[in-house]
Amino acid sequence: MNYSVIRFLMGWILNFEAGFMLLPALVAWYYEEHQGISFLISMGVCLALGIPLSRKKPKNHVFYTAEGYVTVSLSWVVLSIMGSLPFMISGCITSPIDAFFETVSGFTTTSATVLTDVEAFPKCMLFWRSFTNWIGGMGVLVFILCLLPLAGGSQMNLMKAESPGPSVSRLVPKVRSTAKILYGIYIALTGAELVALLLARMPFFDAVNLAVGTAGTGGFFIKQDSISSYTILQQGIITGFMILFGINFNLYFLMLTGRLRQAVANEEVRVYFILMILAAAVVTLNTRHLYDTVFYAIHRSAVSVVSMITSTGYFTTDYCQWPLLSQTILVLLMFCGACAGSTGGGMKISRLLLLFKTVKKEIILSLHPRAVETVKMEGKSVRPEVIRSLNVYFAAYGMIFVVSLLLITADGPDLVTNFSAVTAMMNNIGIGLGQVGPTGDFSMYNGFSKLVFCFDMLAGRLEIMPMLLLFSRKTWKKF
Amino acid sequence: MNYSVIRFLMGWILNFEAGFMLLPALVAWYYEEHQGISFLISMGVCLALGIPLSRKKPKNHVFYTAEGYVTVSLSWVVLSIMGSLPFMISGCITSPIDAFFETVSGFTTTSATVLTDVEAFPKCMLFWRSFTNWIGGMGVLVFILCLLPLAGGSQMNLMKAESPGPSVSRLVPKVRSTAKILYGIYIALTGAELVALLLARMPFFDAVNLAVGTAGTGGFFIKQDSISSYTILQQGIITGFMILFGINFNLYFLMLTGRLRQAVANEEVRVYFILMILAAAVVTLNTRHLYDTVFYAIHRSAVSVVSMITSTGYFTTDYCQWPLLSQTILVLLMFCGACAGSTGGGMKISRLLLLFKTVKKEIILSLHPRAVETVKMEGKSVRPEVIRSLNVYFAAYGMIFVVSLLLITADGPDLVTNFSAVTAMMNNIGIGLGQVGPTGDFSMYNGFSKLVFCFDMLAGRLEIMPMLLLFSRKTWKKF
Repeated sequence: MNYSVIRFLMGWILNFEAGFMLLPALVAWYYEEHQGISFLISMGVCLALGIPLSRKKPKNHVFYTAEGYVTVSLSWVVLSIMGSLPFMISGCITSPIDAFFETVSGFTTTSATVLTDVEAFPKCMLFWRSFTNWIGGMGVLVFILCLLPLAGGSQMNLMKAESPGPSVSRLVPKVRSTAKILYGIYIALTGAELVALLLARMPFFDAVNLAVGTAGTGGFFIKQDSISSYTILQQGIITGFMILFGINFNLYFLMLTGRLRQAVANEEVRVYFILMILAAAVVTLNTRHLYDTVFYAIHRSAVSVVSMITSTGYFTTDYCQWPLLSQTILVLLMFCGACAGSTGGGMKISRLLLLFKTVKKEIILSLHPRAVETVKMEGKSVRPEVIRSLNVYFAAYGMIFVVSLLLITADGPDLVTNFSAVTAMMNNIGIGLGQVGPTGDFSMYNGFSKLVFCFDMLAGRLEIMPMLLLFSRKTWKKF
Repeated sequence: MNYSVIRFLMGWILNFEAGFMLLPALVAWYYEEHQGISFLISMGVCLALGIPLSRKKPKNHVFYTAEGYVTVSLSWVVLSIMGSLPFMISGCITSPIDAFFETVSGFTTTSATVLTDVEAFPKCMLFWRSFTNWIGGMGVLVFILCLLPLAGGSQMNLMKAESPGPSVSRLVPKVRSTAKILYGIYIALTGAELVALLLARMPFFDAVNLAVGTAGTGGFFIKQDSISSYTILQQGIITGFMILFGINFNLYFLMLTGRLRQAVANEEVRVYFILMILAAAVVTLNTRHLYDTVFYAIHRSAVSVVSMITSTGYFTTDYCQWPLLSQTILVLLMFCGACAGSTGGGMKISRLLLLFKTVKKEIILSLHPRAVETVKMEGKSVRPEVIRSLNVYFAAYGMIFVVSLLLITADGPDLVTNFSAVTAMMNNIGIGLGQVGPTGDFSMYNGFSKLVFCFDMLAGRLEIMPMLLLFSRKTWKKF
């Protein structure tokens, strides 16, 4: 294990986090909230630890996949611990576990909350919550890659560990340029949503929070009823951008570089849209009788479907009152997730597509034992390692799911709530059914369960392997 | 596709089924029940179709895996259609779909029932239900293999398609002798249970039904309260035999041939016992406060745990009243299942063990990229094809599960009932939670849902691939 690089990066993570906290501090200054001081103290703590760690450049540049995994998972844990300081210092959230849960929930873009009344929260704290969504959406190490010159091997392995999806492709030969392009698109899209919301006459503070919350497909809301009280137009804009942020960012790059046909031909995105349209249609038919007009039924269904498949978690209605079919569809969409290479959570459509194709291949192979069948994705043969790590992903996912369910079940109120809570955690949605549905929150679970949830959220966001390695005895034996 | 062999085997399936029906006809004669006539009519129908089909021996002996799969799944469907005739002819179950459901449920050893009052049912019909458990437990084609001389290729492929577990091993070089040994052990163990129950003073009719029901890990009961009203000793005997029928039958063969050490060293069986003991211990602690004595709590917990992991589905208590942790454990055990090569359903412990090992291997590989790691089971390296088909099994299992859940969900009463109903079907348990728990039955679902369930039960019993092939367009295009 290359300790010196890990130490160096950990230092930079802390320095960058101090930088991030400048923004909520400014919000506090603008709204004259005394809680701003807690951000300044936290920044001091971050820098006091970060500067010494990051001062000495590592000499040894050997950096394998395992190092990438461990660095990424460790840095997300560190990021969350430090990020919870302002909540605790200001006294806004007194329990350390609650503060940690809320911060992990933010960075992993889960946005499950322990707050029973968000509207009573200071604006700077609300902004910090939303901003963690934005930072976590594209990934903090990808961000650092944009700005920090790092040696070759480490770049790709960090990118691989933090980016969602079964395989990562570079847009351009240089990893650093790839990271810059991705963040460029991310910032531009966020800006576009902000402008659109302002044009739709949303108050500035709300618009900023919702834009960064949507961008990370996070879903922290600043009103108790999520986005229900905004106008239909504003809700429509948010929904549209949720869809956009659920698309593989590589596609935007293709579009920008004039390869429109290649972008449109993307298999995953096509399935993404088909799934959304199908699901929204069924849910509309299924909930039609609950609403006065067809338009309303379509609107409510579309928002919920998009919010679930992109793992954002905004809501405009209490879907727990919907018929079982609609509820079941929403839960299944939570598992499904959006496209690889987007900011969305869940299993990702490309993974499920690949899984489906391997089953199809096996059927053909058992009918024609001598046939030469390869699994293809986007027109290219998929390498066997990708299929292997895909299978391992699902296996490990299932195991973590089952163990988590067992660990928290003694604590929860009912089977539906428990099951959907773990689902909402592992897929980074933030809300589920029953008592963790739109009208509830996660405050009823005890500290132990919340720590299990924190692990689940991180495992979900980092797509299992990094977190498994961090907690594997074997990793730390390797010295 | 080798049609002539399929036709020939289908004929013999019908002939054998006619033979099986002789037994319930005798029961009817003994108890002077007029419904016996319906068995005679059904036998006539079976023979009228079976004799012409099986008269001409097939010339072409080419028989691949796909043929094996299709033959097995088709024969199970035929078996179930014909097996439902006595219920319909006698008028005991009037709806054809209900009768089909009940028969599929019997042959697949699921033993979910649509009957709201089993005790009002004639004895010959009750025996027929239980007997289908016994026939389906070890597999009807394996039975035919014992008695019918078939050409080489077809034997192994039939055995492979019908036997539970990730891979099938021959006990002796000849497939036919292997089948005979397996059925020999099966009959001997069933006989042993019958004797034990009779010695424990159980009435003869009850003892026969429970012995064959346990043997197939089926679980059709002939009293409304399942096995609750029997003595503790009788319940204990049944539980003991459930455990025995959940063990890989290869082990009994090893024991019989003096290879005791090899049998005891079996990894899967060890995990099987560890899981049962652990689960029973946790459930006991979790339900201790509900019972007067520790002994009672242990007894109830053990029966439920064993009944679920072996996929039998007998119960002695309404576990839906238990705390959530215990209910969750029971549901997870349903998925887990017993050992490969036993009569139990579910995913099988060896599959889950293999899955766990592939994840572990991947962790080691990402830490030591140049390490040579192979997945081992019972001391031997597992072939890559086995891992591949394992992954396909889980993938297809998940897909069928999700689609089934969607198809039946509009019809069901609540999320827990629906989810556990599909779980109970695909793992061949027969009871779940909520309204399909110990106090309920499957009569509330409509015809369409019941047909979906029939597919699930068959897919579960035949371990997915045969049923997928039967319903794949590609299979029938292959001419």
